[in-house]
Amino acid sequence: MRSQLISRRDLEFLLYEWLRVEELIALPRFGDHSRETFDGFLDLCEELATRHFAPHNKRNDSMEPTFDGTRVTVIPEVKAAIEAFAKANLIGAAMDERHGGIQLPSVVDAAGLCWFQAANAGTMAYLFLTIGNANLLSAHGTPEQIERFVVPMVEGRATGTMCLSEPQAGSSLADITTRAEPADDGSFRLFGSKMWISGGDHELTENIVHLVLARIPGAPAGVKGISLFIVPKYLVAEDGSVGERNDVVLAGLNHKMGYRGTTNAVLNFGEGAHTPQDAPGAIGYLIGEPNRGLSYMFHMMNEARLGVGLGATALGYTGYLKSLEYARERRQGRAITAKDPATQQIPIIEHADVRRMLLAQKSYVEGALGLLLYCNRLTDLERADPDPEAGRRHRLLLEILTGVAKSWPSQWCLEANSLAIQVHGGYGYTREYDVEQHYRDNRLNPIHEGTHGIQGMDLLGRKVIQHDGASLGLLTEVVTATVAAARDAGGAAAEFGAELDASWQRLLTVTGSMFAAGDPVAAMANSTIYLEAFGHLVISWIWLEQLVAVGDREGDFYDGKRAAARYFFRYELPKTGPQLDLLESLDRTTLDVRADWF
Amino acid sequence: MRSQLISRRDLEFLLYEWLRVEELIALPRFGDHSRETFDGFLDLCEELATRHFAPHNKRNDSMEPTFDGTRVTVIPEVKAAIEAFAKANLIGAAMDERHGGIQLPSVVDAAGLCWFQAANAGTMAYLFLTIGNANLLSAHGTPEQIERFVVPMVEGRATGTMCLSEPQAGSSLADITTRAEPADDGSFRLFGSKMWISGGDHELTENIVHLVLARIPGAPAGVKGISLFIVPKYLVAEDGSVGERNDVVLAGLNHKMGYRGTTNAVLNFGEGAHTPQDAPGAIGYLIGEPNRGLSYMFHMMNEARLGVGLGATALGYTGYLKSLEYARERRQGRAITAKDPATQQIPIIEHADVRRMLLAQKSYVEGALGLLLYCNRLTDLERADPDPEAGRRHRLLLEILTGVAKSWPSQWCLEANSLAIQVHGGYGYTREYDVEQHYRDNRLNPIHEGTHGIQGMDLLGRKVIQHDGASLGLLTEVVTATVAAARDAGGAAAEFGAELDASWQRLLTVTGSMFAAGDPVAAMANSTIYLEAFGHLVISWIWLEQLVAVGDREGDFYDGKRAAARYFFRYELPKTGPQLDLLESLDRTTLDVRADWF
Repeated sequence: MRSQLISRRDLEFLLYEWLRVEELIALPRFGDHSRETFDGFLDLCEELATRHFAPHNKRNDSMEPTFDGTRVTVIPEVKAAIEAFAKANLIGAAMDERHGGIQLPSVVDAAGLCWFQAANAGTMAYLFLTIGNANLLSAHGTPEQIERFVVPMVEGRATGTMCLSEPQAGSSLADITTRAEPADDGSFRLFGSKMWISGGDHELTENIVHLVLARIPGAPAGVKGISLFIVPKYLVAEDGSVGERNDVVLAGLNHKMGYRGTTNAVLNFGEGAHTPQDAPGAIGYLIGEPNRGLSYMFHMMNEARLGVGLGATALGYTGYLKSLEYARERRQGRAITAKDPATQQIPIIEHADVRRMLLAQKSYVEGALGLLLYCNRLTDLERADPDPEAGRRHRLLLEILTGVAKSWPSQWCLEANSLAIQVHGGYGYTREYDVEQHYRDNRLNPIHEGTHGIQGMDLLGRKVIQHDGASLGLLTEVVTATVAAARDAGGAAAEFGAELDASWQRLLTVTGSMFAAGDPVAAMANSTIYLEAFGHLVISWIWLEQLVAVGDREGDFYDGKRAAARYFFRYELPKTGPQLDLLESLDRTTLDVRADWF
Repeated sequence: MRSQLISRRDLEFLLYEWLRVEELIALPRFGDHSRETFDGFLDLCEELATRHFAPHNKRNDSMEPTFDGTRVTVIPEVKAAIEAFAKANLIGAAMDERHGGIQLPSVVDAAGLCWFQAANAGTMAYLFLTIGNANLLSAHGTPEQIERFVVPMVEGRATGTMCLSEPQAGSSLADITTRAEPADDGSFRLFGSKMWISGGDHELTENIVHLVLARIPGAPAGVKGISLFIVPKYLVAEDGSVGERNDVVLAGLNHKMGYRGTTNAVLNFGEGAHTPQDAPGAIGYLIGEPNRGLSYMFHMMNEARLGVGLGATALGYTGYLKSLEYARERRQGRAITAKDPATQQIPIIEHADVRRMLLAQKSYVEGALGLLLYCNRLTDLERADPDPEAGRRHRLLLEILTGVAKSWPSQWCLEANSLAIQVHGGYGYTREYDVEQHYRDNRLNPIHEGTHGIQGMDLLGRKVIQHDGASLGLLTEVVTATVAAARDAGGAAAEFGAELDASWQRLLTVTGSMFAAGDPVAAMANSTIYLEAFGHLVISWIWLEQLVAVGDREGDFYDGKRAAARYFFRYELPKTGPQLDLLESLDRTTLDVRADWF
């Protein structure tokens, strides 16, 4: 049976036929790799995800972690899965060899990791946070910090978290109040409460490495006074052995609609439950310079946003494949021109509306996966391209695409999961099938790592206008190049390319006119709508890219790509028309309404 | 504190200021009623829903019914709630006085019942099915059947179900195979299996009255050979006392994503577990004539569709009110022109994007509630209008609106629940707050009582073209009259009216062109898109109606109505443009794609 997690055939198309990732091997960073090591990695991921992650996905959901006031209990399969993952050296797959990694390109790493997200989002969350945490520390930590905290994470002896939110400060990081007081030995003592900490406590590994945003007394107000600290659950001795308990206390677990397999914690730092080394407070170690914590955290945050987008895509993808399988097997009804009840019922995939729901899902998940892989390849090029100017271009492109790569899959691959339920009919609404869990799990993604609304404000209020519009200009160049290639290809590609070109030019015009009016409040009032229109245009471009890569190749797979692209251009791209009209009008409905009117 | 279930102020606006339901009192059927009896009924519903239904909504979800192989156990609060509801004579509220009812207009009944759906969808489902079942039997049963089965339901001693689906026949009712063999005493013996039976088994009441579709041997194939039977869980003696167990066996409960408080059963009829009266089979009593079962069932089905739409609306409504309350209280961030971190954070309702999410919810739930009350008033007029020609007009209008009144709230009030979660941020994703449950509960509504896709085929393939387009013609007359009234009102109403008029004319043109092409398969290929565009236009019309009713009245409430109407015309109505373009093009994407291409 074909895998119902991710299509390997599609991954190979995207990686090799479209993105030509073998070409990365020419870069020194990836010189030890080859198509064979890439394929071997994908084989390994598919096999481990299928064998160690997928089987306990439902149990992870129905038997969520419990906290008895002392310890957190998680079903044992999670620990076994984490061990298998670490043993295969997957945590460090994309990391530097000098830190124990295997320097795989991120684009290949992402293609492998999405199998695990499709198989078991709850278990994989511990690992994704660990990878992001280790990457941040590798980039900004001291050699000693890397030795003491990154190596145990790469080896699977510790997991990592990111501790940003507080009860009074979620989207508004400027308002965090956790404080970090300098101690005589150069370390700090932290006091405060952190909220929504995924993987915040458990007994899955011998230690947990928290990355905590806090203020050093006297620091400037707002985001310019935030520093970043390593706060381990257990202190680590110089020889690397795990020692005394740090003063980090689990105040309670959040019980969620989905992602139930991942503990989600309220953590109290320095409340006095443990007072190591005779001084109150949770011991923390400053990363880099004081007051620059948020910029370091954005290293992890941007990676986490791509991770969220990839996770949303993976959940959408597996839901699509499962509903496809169901639609091939389930017989119900007859063609509308052949209603004779004496004839056998037909597979529901023969009904136009079911095909519409399958094509919609296919266009969402394969479009989203394309964008995520494209962005991950940009991170590879940014990091490894020896030409600094090229590196800068890659970075600017990545900056404007990251929010879209987070938000678009979070919206539309959730919609894909809803369609997967709908294809299953009543069965899809039961816990007997997988798709309802995917839908519940995926609903988290528009919320965490910057809500949908925050992404809109970031895109329109920062990314589009930054560097005098250089990011948007570069993206326009890239889109224009694709349109030119599509024109050369002729046929449907040329037709769709012309449509994209017109819509993209309209986007640029509207963007300019919004700011030209000189009313930033009005310009920003519909930033979420802007994000959504922008996202649909970006995915249209990704589909055009895929269509150009398909060229005139023959066979069911390529015909499927053509059909999905056609679906996207016929059913989805036109949705941006009314959105751009609304944006251009600088509509004030949401500004004029008063709170008392509701 | 204002109720967080439904806005009483809004209900009073819709009932009295817009629909002028006091005028119904002039009709003989409702002659015993008055504004006072209506208000008393609404008071009673609000109070009972708040006191007996809302408090156990979460427990009903977290402690779902269990089946130990013999008995079904449901938390005791459900039984208490059902008893309180029945004791207040709410089951028969809209029923004939001669059957124990109080002959309240359906429009008022619906306005009362939606409190219960908002408070506790799971518990209310038992009662809604009972009401629908009793209404069907009252219309089509014999006096003796009414005495034996309707009276116990009205008194709360029995609940009712509808048994249509079978494992191999869900959307395709033509394929049911349950058979009903005539017995010597005029009754029937049923054999077969029924699926997705809400309220299918429990110990909440002393009996359960199943309405079961089955075939009598020799009946024509397909839907023309289906008959309808009463099959009680326990046989009922002539004196009305509950006797022997009938051969209806619970094969198992379905475990769902939401609506967990309602048992959902697979029932086996005549499998031999109980053999009453020495003959195998479940004893059933034919309703009306053989082979006309589906037409009787549609009596209940149409009512159930309005019930589903009302339930979807109620869940959307309570989620809206809860997110509104949260948005007023939760402080986070600052105005985009006042970022000083030393100032206090502002309530999130001050952020434009949060207001957008609140206005969207308001426009969805108040628009949907308007449509549902409008449709329920049509049922009152159809039933009670002494002028037969007027009655016919009401029926034709109701026929074309029922599917929209079911499907539109199921889609958009679910979206409202998603926005309610989003307004809550991370909190909304936890089970500590109510909105995640509303979202899970509401996801059922596009599936049951005719899926979203089935509603689309029914609208485009049947309702739009029936009676030579008379239903659509009547609806056009009504819409045109509203547009004229809006033109007279001037201002925003006139502006929005002109927009609706243009879009409605476009709908008519497109509808005509789709069928003119002479290719029914192509015309029907996008029937779901047609349903969605049609639905958005109908809700635009409902908002225009509300706006005309608002007139130039002053005050926060009316300003809120104006703002929500403006939101709908600015953000929602334009979405129909690309949908109508697609429909007009008779796009063949979903027809041309082949199953092997996926």
